[in-house]
Amino acid sequence: MSGLLLARHDALPAYAPGARANDGAIRLNTNESPYPPSPGVVRAARDAARGVNLYNDPDCAALHAALARENGVTPDCVLAANGSDEALYLAFLAYADEAHPICLPDVTYGYYALFAALHHIPIRRVPLREDFTVDLAAMARERGMIVLANPNAPTGLAVSPQEIDALCASDPGRIVLIDEAYVDFGAATCAGLIARRENLLVVRTFSKSRSMAGARLGYALACPARIAELARIHNAAGLYSVSAMAQAMGIAACQEDDYYRANCARIAASREYAAREMEGLGFLMTRSLGNFLFVRHPRLPGDALREGLARRGVLVRGIDAPRARDYCRISVGTRRQMETMIAAARDCLRAAEEQRGEDAHAQR
Amino acid sequence: MSGLLLARHDALPAYAPGARANDGAIRLNTNESPYPPSPGVVRAARDAARGVNLYNDPDCAALHAALARENGVTPDCVLAANGSDEALYLAFLAYADEAHPICLPDVTYGYYALFAALHHIPIRRVPLREDFTVDLAAMARERGMIVLANPNAPTGLAVSPQEIDALCASDPGRIVLIDEAYVDFGAATCAGLIARRENLLVVRTFSKSRSMAGARLGYALACPARIAELARIHNAAGLYSVSAMAQAMGIAACQEDDYYRANCARIAASREYAAREMEGLGFLMTRSLGNFLFVRHPRLPGDALREGLARRGVLVRGIDAPRARDYCRISVGTRRQMETMIAAARDCLRAAEEQRGEDAHAQR
Repeated sequence: MSGLLLARHDALPAYAPGARANDGAIRLNTNESPYPPSPGVVRAARDAARGVNLYNDPDCAALHAALARENGVTPDCVLAANGSDEALYLAFLAYADEAHPICLPDVTYGYYALFAALHHIPIRRVPLREDFTVDLAAMARERGMIVLANPNAPTGLAVSPQEIDALCASDPGRIVLIDEAYVDFGAATCAGLIARRENLLVVRTFSKSRSMAGARLGYALACPARIAELARIHNAAGLYSVSAMAQAMGIAACQEDDYYRANCARIAASREYAAREMEGLGFLMTRSLGNFLFVRHPRLPGDALREGLARRGVLVRGIDAPRARDYCRISVGTRRQMETMIAAARDCLRAAEEQRGEDAHAQR
Repeated sequence: MSGLLLARHDALPAYAPGARANDGAIRLNTNESPYPPSPGVVRAARDAARGVNLYNDPDCAALHAALARENGVTPDCVLAANGSDEALYLAFLAYADEAHPICLPDVTYGYYALFAALHHIPIRRVPLREDFTVDLAAMARERGMIVLANPNAPTGLAVSPQEIDALCASDPGRIVLIDEAYVDFGAATCAGLIARRENLLVVRTFSKSRSMAGARLGYALACPARIAELARIHNAAGLYSVSAMAQAMGIAACQEDDYYRANCARIAASREYAAREMEGLGFLMTRSLGNFLFVRHPRLPGDALREGLARRGVLVRGIDAPRARDYCRISVGTRRQMETMIAAARDCLRAAEEQRGEDAHAQR
């Protein structure tokens, strides 16, 4: 340490994002949408860029109105952010600190733990059940703000709004944060609960189903009192954080919702296709509702599959979490990309089989 | 309080941004550039928007290379951020906390105090001298990370790189953060010092001289060790924070530097024109090197001037700081806008004069 960086950051871990594609590799390691944004979104970015000498609206009034309409709530139930990561970060600052822990599944989105580490927020990790489903009863018994990706990543498994509703009701003094980054690919949203659960925060993103990962736009939905609290933190931490382009693109995307719904349906169909094919190859997997599959093969360690696919031009994501190390997370791209991935996986299995044959021969 | 928001935020103040223009008012209250971004910047936004289904580069490699070239440093001396506000925020997290104060002039950019309040960072305020110049000797005697806008806002007065160099040298164990948001309108940058001062951070923005306030792009310059520390905090707080559009627009702006230099020269000329005219009307002011004037009139309180100008369709910014309450900060727009503002100010003075005449008459 230099003696300049505060010692409190000595143990700060790093987040390793999915590797970026090199030379034509198919990138199935960051859960991006394979489909481009709609034409109106691109026009909105260009038009907004023409006026960026002026500040963006710090209150995101027009965007909040569009998001409120889309979610059937009033605008004071919405707070836009620079990606859902910022919405999550603000919620952590508002409701957790060194004395107020957060409560997470042991296998989930890696960034939660990073926010917590940065601000020395204790983490109570609740193990997923043997089948990777979330143990809500165990989380209810723990202490601290509940942070739950639903569907969870990387498993793709979801709990129902009814279960979340009961969880919120079980302790109205405890914040329940539901990260719905992947909800549009087949799970049910909890947005309808915010009218009756004042301790519920629902966080959503434009990165996945809305094809806007590079634009950085997410938002929180909650009762007006909670949104006012998050806005207060946002005012102090980065009032202008949602750029003029992101605001305009978000509004345009809401107006072209049909395009994005159709993409989600295509992605869900490609997911089901890929799942069937991979089960045919002997892969085991959860019944993912996200835009990714969570798979392992009984005869191929997770690292070997990931490296074998990478050598064949398909990047997938390894999992650095207990009980999940033999798994890979494979984003769902286009049908064509899924076919390429499946062919590469088949080839990996064949090569491993041959290797085992040679090893057995050498041992004789 | 709800009992949900942490009590630590009970006293969190709010930042009030400059009011947004209504119905054709001239907005000289947020120090925006009156000139649009260059054509290449708009094209870059559109082109980047077409590919936003993919994540932006979290390492901002191409942007860092462009900024390094522009500043004559290596890319490991640069960290891009979602506006200079984010760069400042990261520096506060890295080098200040409840036990490590920051040291500020008593009259300066309001956001510093807000970051500090959010994280309970103590502030040591060092009064400006009577003439509003920064008292570096007094700051050197204080404790904590020095945070200095240079030129300072709202005064527009700058200290020289030689003075900053000496300040850095006086205590190499103390971070000196120089916020150069307004440096391009006539002051000298400290970027050349980072090669020899490991405790120096220079923060810059594309919001002012680069006509990109709504795009959210800023960056820090420092020695590689400090940049690595800031990057470590950035990795934990918001790895992807600089959108694909902001990155592409920043690169394009660097390539069209001549356009922006010419704009800065025009703005400086309009500033000098407006200063002369206003002095002719009896206004007192600092010799601002920013894209704003810091003015007061002996016969018109600050509030009266601000309200009078607003009634005449010109928005300027009041100052909520000790000794500066009689001042207004007036952004420098186009020459035409300055003419309109000066005419409105003349009219305010005339109206005040008439009012005084009437009052005197009524007292007789």
